[in-house]
Amino acid sequence: MTDAQTGERIWTAALVVIGDEILSGRTQDKNVAQVAAWLNVQGIRLAEVRVVADVEAAIVEAVNSLRARNDYLFTTGGIGPTHDDITVDAIAVALGVGVTHHPKAMATLESYYATRGGLTEARARMARVPEGADLIENRVSGAPGIRVANIFIMAGVPHITAGMLDALTGTLEGGRPVVSKQIGGWIAESEIADILRAAEQAFEGVAIGSYPFFREGRVGANFVVRSPDEAQVDACLTKLTADLEADGRAVFAGGI
Amino acid sequence: MTDAQTGERIWTAALVVIGDEILSGRTQDKNVAQVAAWLNVQGIRLAEVRVVADVEAAIVEAVNSLRARNDYLFTTGGIGPTHDDITVDAIAVALGVGVTHHPKAMATLESYYATRGGLTEARARMARVPEGADLIENRVSGAPGIRVANIFIMAGVPHITAGMLDALTGTLEGGRPVVSKQIGGWIAESEIADILRAAEQAFEGVAIGSYPFFREGRVGANFVVRSPDEAQVDACLTKLTADLEADGRAVFAGGI
Repeated sequence: MTDAQTGERIWTAALVVIGDEILSGRTQDKNVAQVAAWLNVQGIRLAEVRVVADVEAAIVEAVNSLRARNDYLFTTGGIGPTHDDITVDAIAVALGVGVTHHPKAMATLESYYATRGGLTEARARMARVPEGADLIENRVSGAPGIRVANIFIMAGVPHITAGMLDALTGTLEGGRPVVSKQIGGWIAESEIADILRAAEQAFEGVAIGSYPFFREGRVGANFVVRSPDEAQVDACLTKLTADLEADGRAVFAGGI
Repeated sequence: MTDAQTGERIWTAALVVIGDEILSGRTQDKNVAQVAAWLNVQGIRLAEVRVVADVEAAIVEAVNSLRARNDYLFTTGGIGPTHDDITVDAIAVALGVGVTHHPKAMATLESYYATRGGLTEARARMARVPEGADLIENRVSGAPGIRVANIFIMAGVPHITAGMLDALTGTLEGGRPVVSKQIGGWIAESEIADILRAAEQAFEGVAIGSYPFFREGRVGANFVVRSPDEAQVDACLTKLTADLEADGRAVFAGGI
C-alpha cells in the first residue's frame, strides 16, 4: 500500500483474533492493543482486525481475505492442546497444505514436559504446524508460535503472545514507525471541530484524532497527531496549539 | 442461521468497531465485550467482529459484508462532531441512500446545548442520519444513536454505548439466551483434553471452552459449558465433573 499524499510505501498487517471467549463477552481481549502497539514500533500499520469464532470456515475466510491484501497477517488464539484449538488446521486448509508435527517443536515440548508429566498425545498436538512452517520462540511456556508464508500464528494468552512478539522484534521489514503526539484541554470537541479540520488539512500525511472524555464532572478532549514524519507532527501540533490558544482555549502539552 | 444439531433458529449479530484509536493501540476497546454480553441476554449470538479504520471504503466493505449475513449489525464509534467522525456518511453510502438532518435529533441537540453554548454547525453534524433512520435514545449525552434497516449505530465511548444498549433492551427479536456455566481446577488442560472432548460430544448443541491460566505460580484452567438449553449445560457439567474426579482431579464448582 502506498500513501496517497506522500507516495511512501506503507507496510500493513491484519490481525485475526480467534476465540469464542471473546465473542461471548467472557474475556476482554488484550491482544489487539498489544499487537497494534508492537507493530507501530516495527513501522507496520495495523490496518484491520477480525474476531471470529472457533469455527474452521470462519477462520479460513478471514485468513484468506486478509493475508492477500496485507503484507503480514497475525492470528491469536486456538493453538493449545484441547479440542477447541483448531487454528493450525484451519490455516493449513486456507493455504491448501497438510499438517505435520514439526521436529523441533516436538523436541522442545519433550524437553518442557520431561519434568511435567511427559509428552502426551494431547500435548503433542501443540507441535502440529502447516507444512512448510517455521517456529516462533515461546519464551514463557512450551508451545511455540508458528510462521508460515506471511502468517504469524500466536498464542491467545496475552503474556505468552508478548513473549512471541518480543522474539520477532526487528525481524520484519517495515517502513518508518508512526510518530504519535498529543495535546489536550478542558474543551468540548464540538466547539473546535473547524480548527482540528484545518490543522489536519494543512499538513500532508498527518492525521488528527479527537478523543473526548468526561472526567471530574467536566468535558475535555485529547487530540492525537499521527504521521511517520516527526517534523510534520511537530509542525502540526504547533499550529493546532496556536490556533486553539488564539480561540481562547487553555492547551496542555502531552494531553490530559 | 439454524443450529446444525438441534434445528433451532439462531439469531446472530455482527459488530463493526470503527476507529483509528483502536488500531493504533492507543485505546483498549471495551465495546466488544460489552455488546457481546448484552446480546447474550437478548438471545442473540455475536458471530463476528471487525475493527476498521476511519476510512469510508473500509467501513462500507465491512458493513455490507456483515449486514447481509447476520440478523443485526452494530457499529461503535465515529458519530461525534469532528472531521474524523464519518460513520453516518459511510453507512449511507453502504445503503445507497442520502444523509439528512433528523428533526427529532435536531430538537434534542438544540435543547441539550441551549445551556452549553448553543447548537453550532459542528454540533448539528450529530443530528445527521442516513435517510429512513430512527433514533436510539442517548441517556447520557446529547447525540442519539441511530437505527437504519438492520443496522444499529452506537457511540464509541463505552458508557454512552451502555446507555444506548439499555434503551434497546427487549426491543430486538432473538432466540433463547445462551446459558454459560463453568468449573475449574488446578489442572493442566493438556492432561485432560480427551475428557473435555468426550464431554462435549456427549451432549447435543453444547460447546465447551477451555481457558488455561497461570496464577500464584501454578497452572490451572476453567472449563466453560455453553448452550441455549440449561438442562443440557447442567447435565454436561455433571458428567465433566464426575469424569475429572474419576481421573483424580479436584474440581471447583463455579471455576477458579
